[in-house]
Amino acid sequence: MNGVGAHEIVIESNDHAIDFPDLQDKRAEDVVWAFRDRIMDLKKDPSFEYILVFKNSGAAAGASIQHTHSQLIATPMVPIRVKQKMRGAEEYYEQRGRSIFADFIRAEKEKKVRVVEENDDFIAIAPFASRFPFEMWVLPKNLVSHYEGMETRHYHSLAGIMKSVLGRMNKVLDFPSYNFLIHNAPLKSASLSYFTWHIEIMPKLVQTAGFEWGTGFYINPVAPEDAARHMREVG
Amino acid sequence: MNGVGAHEIVIESNDHAIDFPDLQDKRAEDVVWAFRDRIMDLKKDPSFEYILVFKNSGAAAGASIQHTHSQLIATPMVPIRVKQKMRGAEEYYEQRGRSIFADFIRAEKEKKVRVVEENDDFIAIAPFASRFPFEMWVLPKNLVSHYEGMETRHYHSLAGIMKSVLGRMNKVLDFPSYNFLIHNAPLKSASLSYFTWHIEIMPKLVQTAGFEWGTGFYINPVAPEDAARHMREVG
Repeated sequence: MNGVGAHEIVIESNDHAIDFPDLQDKRAEDVVWAFRDRIMDLKKDPSFEYILVFKNSGAAAGASIQHTHSQLIATPMVPIRVKQKMRGAEEYYEQRGRSIFADFIRAEKEKKVRVVEENDDFIAIAPFASRFPFEMWVLPKNLVSHYEGMETRHYHSLAGIMKSVLGRMNKVLDFPSYNFLIHNAPLKSASLSYFTWHIEIMPKLVQTAGFEWGTGFYINPVAPEDAARHMREVG
Repeated sequence: MNGVGAHEIVIESNDHAIDFPDLQDKRAEDVVWAFRDRIMDLKKDPSFEYILVFKNSGAAAGASIQHTHSQLIATPMVPIRVKQKMRGAEEYYEQRGRSIFADFIRAEKEKKVRVVEENDDFIAIAPFASRFPFEMWVLPKNLVSHYEGMETRHYHSLAGIMKSVLGRMNKVLDFPSYNFLIHNAPLKSASLSYFTWHIEIMPKLVQTAGFEWGTGFYINPVAPEDAARHMREVG
């Protein structure tokens, strides 16, 4: 393993202060396409094993640049947290013969209480074991493992639901600082039936403190069912 | 597993605004004894498997009470992060027949560059793989696995080095918000030769952001050698 990496900034707009949900539809679509295009290009460098796409918005979420932007970091190894997620999904698949993501989406659609919103291609959920208040996950209904492997029409659909969900968040929580990140399969892995790429959105409302650092457990004062209901109620 | 737990607050002083390093020696010693006494008492309840002792100081470190205090949380299971640490230490011991903590302390004492301070019984180190700027670990030289299993005279010595190290931190970083937490062996485990209890101190200078959440890797702009040197230089 060498220490080579890449770090890129995606400038989302020429408007300095605009947040993602207020971008024009075409502009938001350009952003999610830019993620794909940059992944495809960086992928040509064989020293990269993983690319994390993420957004830090607001100082409390660690943003050091004010202008609306998101980021890609390419790493020469698969990160430990990604390995853990992949292994968990793989074990579930081996034991039950089904994708945990398929089961998760099916169960949430039946119960409905934690669903924030869905369109033809994506569903946004306040997950059962949310670590943070108003944490949300956005998952594709077409269970592909790689973000860059999506069908063309799905990028349009993704831009739409991300604009909508982040817009709901801004209405309910009055423009909080937030992070989102794309959990993607490793660059060099084949298409995987046990893993589905997805986005985690984490509004930065509470501080991670001694208990969380010491245990890996998270104290979350807001039930995901309540979070989802508040998010659904704003239009 | 049931959901029963306990949460206790240790009031460190009747002075509202005093920080740990400014406590009188006897008072600081009372605090580290209180941790032991409360562990010994909570241990009588067989439903508890682990007790985390920690301190959140300042709003940025997640403190919701201003008055100087620390906390204990007893949990009915061994937390995932503790299990991972224990497993890592056990594997090291199985492979090499030596404690990773013994090797760690020996190596750092030889190199000296990351040692902040030591007394007869404890050593404070800016660890090689610091996740956060000015992160510091305090380790007992007598390698016992359980905080509550220390010899009586060591509590005095621990209070002394904690006062001194946190005092250095306040001088170098101008009273930052910070967390510290005691990594202890599980309540019901026997005395373990592969694990040594220790304290992690984490000044809250940077935000954990998208990259850290997505990868489990930490971007730390301050080399631990520089952090240790700054800490040593203030008296």
